[in-house]
Amino acid sequence: MIRLYDLAGARDDCRFSPNCWPVHMALLHKGLRFEAVPWRFTEKDRIAFSGQGAVPVLVDGGRTVVEKWVIAEYLEDVYPDRPSLFGGLRGRALAHFVTNWAVSVVTLGAIRLILSDIFNVLHEKDKDYFRQSREQRFAMTLEEVTRDRDTRVEEFRRTLQPLRVSLGRTPFLSGDAPGWADYVTFGPFQWARSVSRFPLLKPDDPVHAWRARMVGLFDGAADKVHILES
Amino acid sequence: MIRLYDLAGARDDCRFSPNCWPVHMALLHKGLRFEAVPWRFTEKDRIAFSGQGAVPVLVDGGRTVVEKWVIAEYLEDVYPDRPSLFGGLRGRALAHFVTNWAVSVVTLGAIRLILSDIFNVLHEKDKDYFRQSREQRFAMTLEEVTRDRDTRVEEFRRTLQPLRVSLGRTPFLSGDAPGWADYVTFGPFQWARSVSRFPLLKPDDPVHAWRARMVGLFDGAADKVHILES
Repeated sequence: MIRLYDLAGARDDCRFSPNCWPVHMALLHKGLRFEAVPWRFTEKDRIAFSGQGAVPVLVDGGRTVVEKWVIAEYLEDVYPDRPSLFGGLRGRALAHFVTNWAVSVVTLGAIRLILSDIFNVLHEKDKDYFRQSREQRFAMTLEEVTRDRDTRVEEFRRTLQPLRVSLGRTPFLSGDAPGWADYVTFGPFQWARSVSRFPLLKPDDPVHAWRARMVGLFDGAADKVHILES
Repeated sequence: MIRLYDLAGARDDCRFSPNCWPVHMALLHKGLRFEAVPWRFTEKDRIAFSGQGAVPVLVDGGRTVVEKWVIAEYLEDVYPDRPSLFGGLRGRALAHFVTNWAVSVVTLGAIRLILSDIFNVLHEKDKDYFRQSREQRFAMTLEEVTRDRDTRVEEFRRTLQPLRVSLGRTPFLSGDAPGWADYVTFGPFQWARSVSRFPLLKPDDPVHAWRARMVGLFDGAADKVHILES
């Protein structure tokens, strides 16, 4: 069975990585059986066999695959008879663009709104590592990063406009049915709702309704873990 | 023959609309013969038959089609045996997302860097209309809009990151060959180089190299009009 090393918090059922969730959804999309093994930031030795220190790490038989986009291409190419993640080569190229957009706009936009909340769900053994590495990256305390979030969230919501316009045309970013572009964009939203009660989206935003559709996929898979946002 | 009403400046060969260029390229991609008829902002009566007052307006036999995305879908559906703009339904949905991104990030980002330059290339009869309507929209003079552009261009370049990352994987946004996603993203860059000498892109930016590839398509179609940028 496929093993996915999956970032976890203090609770084993708190699975909050914005990079692991797209892989989780892609495995469900492909109908592949897998085990999502809880892993913590400081357990670098447990994934040293992968050649680097971050998840997702996917182990499929004798093959180890790392990084979400590389894993998506691997699953599409190795399981071509299962439902397609990309819908052809053009769809694959454009799904790569959406992946880059999701990282640089959604994940990097949201991190400045929820960073201090992540700290609270972490396993004790990860807390010092997380605070030290993130405070060094942002050159301020975790609490300073998110301090003005009530005003800054407006700009974040504005940057979601391309997604919002697409959702006026079809229920999913990929069209009538979800695909990798949806899963990779959903990742950072699932991350946020796993660790934070801060409302990234307004209830009347079409992106909010899309997120609810994403949560409902695969028998509500994204609600079968610990969720903080009500 | 297909007629495309195409925004022009004082010179008939200054064709600068960021919304007409994607249609222009799509027609070349489909290998369709067409005439790009020069049109100015204040010639609302000449396109009144289309039911609205902006270009692109495409007239194909007895059919009139407006708005770039609607025209792209029209061309794909009415000329399905010609080279595909989208590469299937999934590619079409994601190309729509790229269209929304190109408008909200590239066009709306670049307009604050080149607005005052547009004024200089306009036909005399359009100048009052343009200054008045744009200064009302931005609530400042044209010159004030672009005043700090030397510093603000950095932020614009940063927002191109998803495109830049994609171009590290394939020569075009759509993959190994260009498609609608490339044409619609190229539109605002062609607009800028038609009206302004202001360097939106650094020469060592992969986006700069992609723009050059786009200019080279279809026997250098984008260089057969009047270009200001050297």
